[in-house]
Amino acid sequence: MYVVKETDMKDFVIKSMTKVGTAKDHAEQLADCLIHADKRGHYSHGLNRLHIYIEDTLGNVAKSGTPVILKQKSATAWVDGKNVLGPVVGNFCMKLAIDLAKEHGIGWIVTKGSNHYGICGHYAIQAAEQGLIGMSFTNTSPCVYPNRSREQALGSNPICCVAPAKNEDNFALDMASTTVAFGKVELAKTKGHATIPEGWGADVNGNPTQIPEEVLNGGGLVSLGGYEDKGAYKGTGLGMMVELFCGVMAGSTFGKNVRQWRESQAPANLAQCFVAIDTECFADGFADRLQQFIDETRDLKPTDSDKLVLVPGDPERTHEQKSKDAGGLLYSERQLESLRQVSKKYDIPLFSYTTL
Amino acid sequence: MYVVKETDMKDFVIKSMTKVGTAKDHAEQLADCLIHADKRGHYSHGLNRLHIYIEDTLGNVAKSGTPVILKQKSATAWVDGKNVLGPVVGNFCMKLAIDLAKEHGIGWIVTKGSNHYGICGHYAIQAAEQGLIGMSFTNTSPCVYPNRSREQALGSNPICCVAPAKNEDNFALDMASTTVAFGKVELAKTKGHATIPEGWGADVNGNPTQIPEEVLNGGGLVSLGGYEDKGAYKGTGLGMMVELFCGVMAGSTFGKNVRQWRESQAPANLAQCFVAIDTECFADGFADRLQQFIDETRDLKPTDSDKLVLVPGDPERTHEQKSKDAGGLLYSERQLESLRQVSKKYDIPLFSYTTL
Repeated sequence: MYVVKETDMKDFVIKSMTKVGTAKDHAEQLADCLIHADKRGHYSHGLNRLHIYIEDTLGNVAKSGTPVILKQKSATAWVDGKNVLGPVVGNFCMKLAIDLAKEHGIGWIVTKGSNHYGICGHYAIQAAEQGLIGMSFTNTSPCVYPNRSREQALGSNPICCVAPAKNEDNFALDMASTTVAFGKVELAKTKGHATIPEGWGADVNGNPTQIPEEVLNGGGLVSLGGYEDKGAYKGTGLGMMVELFCGVMAGSTFGKNVRQWRESQAPANLAQCFVAIDTECFADGFADRLQQFIDETRDLKPTDSDKLVLVPGDPERTHEQKSKDAGGLLYSERQLESLRQVSKKYDIPLFSYTTL
Repeated sequence: MYVVKETDMKDFVIKSMTKVGTAKDHAEQLADCLIHADKRGHYSHGLNRLHIYIEDTLGNVAKSGTPVILKQKSATAWVDGKNVLGPVVGNFCMKLAIDLAKEHGIGWIVTKGSNHYGICGHYAIQAAEQGLIGMSFTNTSPCVYPNRSREQALGSNPICCVAPAKNEDNFALDMASTTVAFGKVELAKTKGHATIPEGWGADVNGNPTQIPEEVLNGGGLVSLGGYEDKGAYKGTGLGMMVELFCGVMAGSTFGKNVRQWRESQAPANLAQCFVAIDTECFADGFADRLQQFIDETRDLKPTDSDKLVLVPGDPERTHEQKSKDAGGLLYSERQLESLRQVSKKYDIPLFSYTTL
């Protein structure tokens, strides 16, 4: 493993994005978001995607500008992201949700005209840092076969909910509505696994497959549950609910009409939803009860004594601690190499790194 | 199959409940809720449970009274259900959510001191009937093994979201956060199936089992996903999120501390959450876009031409049409027999029925 100081990585992202014309404050917000993902161990949504943000910016993403509130009524707002980088839209909207929650108990923001915004948790956590419950949802390019379908017609449409407990502990759910993310299938292939578990993906015809290449080459993911008799219709229902909160409410593209992944010339016009809730509007002592719930869950007797019961956010917490202990972000040779390629292609001096 | 007129069944429920002392208007609200479930084909949450509501009322449920708003701020409210029947609490809270949504764009209600309230859809649909998105969540008695746990520490914690499209069509997700409900395991046993699919349940030690009796006799359900490598930690995360919106926010019991199922002497003190959202606060034309999304989903090419792609709510819609065509509620001999027992035990004249 290699260690890269956060400040060095931030500098690298800013240089990369400003090189293709992105305003510096936008580049900074993207850097924070991607670094946050890598720090939490969500490598599929971190620096790994820097080249895609560059391509999207060379394609059609607005290099500067500010999202605009189109309608605002009490606890709600409808926002146009004005096609700026996703994290800029996300930060704008989450701040608005937080402000509305402080005034009205809840803020529910629906946004069109956005772009890929990285991990949902980056936004929901901002609410939790202010003592509120935060939620965020996004639609994404179609890569999922809805239950029974042989057409890919839904994105991996994630659900994210973060709530603050005591002493910086929290509940942090951030999950795709599919059994797994593409990253897990890619990882299986990289590690040379001949097969993946049942219920992870389907081939180009929508038929279940356990061969990673068949999922990656024209195939797609399946909804949480995997198979109809194992509840895949529920996973599909959750993915559709996310689309309801995003594309359908926002009046942007939705479902199978969202542009294909990495089709950088057309505007993505992604839709997102941001929610903040002030727990003080309900029973006093929320953080104490949440901490009790978290502690009681972690303390449950496990079926396998080597595998403790976890609370959503625990694996990310462990990874964040590892990064902290190492003094920076942790990367494998393969991850580093892909960033060397970006450095070379766009002529940006590479960050320095140390070996762990 | 047997057919019972809705009015006859309503009369039977009212007579049963008033016999044990429940106020007539409360009994009526329970009747509407249970009949709604049976009409939609959710038999596990309909008349099948009448005897439990009777037992709970003989135990400790308040026979009359009105829920009370404990705190109200702009779009939010915290309610004490005052231990009246769940549907009475649910109707009170959903009406409040709808009123707040009309004024503030959204209404988010969290409630303690409630009881079993039947199908979540009964409440969410009330919002949809007024052109709003409706959501409802409830915690339930612990019957689920969280991922990795050998202790049952979560309820089946359902997620429900209903949104109105055109011409009374809608999106109506109403799902437990488990792979299946207990009803499906019971049905497999009743039908004499020796095994159930993998990922439905676990035995008394929390180990996966495919033998229905092992799930039903001291075992329990597992979170959607079924196994850790198939995403069960996501299902557990969703179940915990529901508990966050219910018991943890409401200041009632939560998680493993909720009373056991049918422990009728202790107050259930269940918690519920009710949400209504006014789509007019966002992009105009919501119903048109939702209808397009629904139609495009139903029109997806299926992997098996005999199994069309469905939208959440379609199976219930089909069942509702069947009931309508038959001129009443449809019951099997087994279901009818269990209602005969109630009739006999509490000395209530049985409704009349016809044979289909």
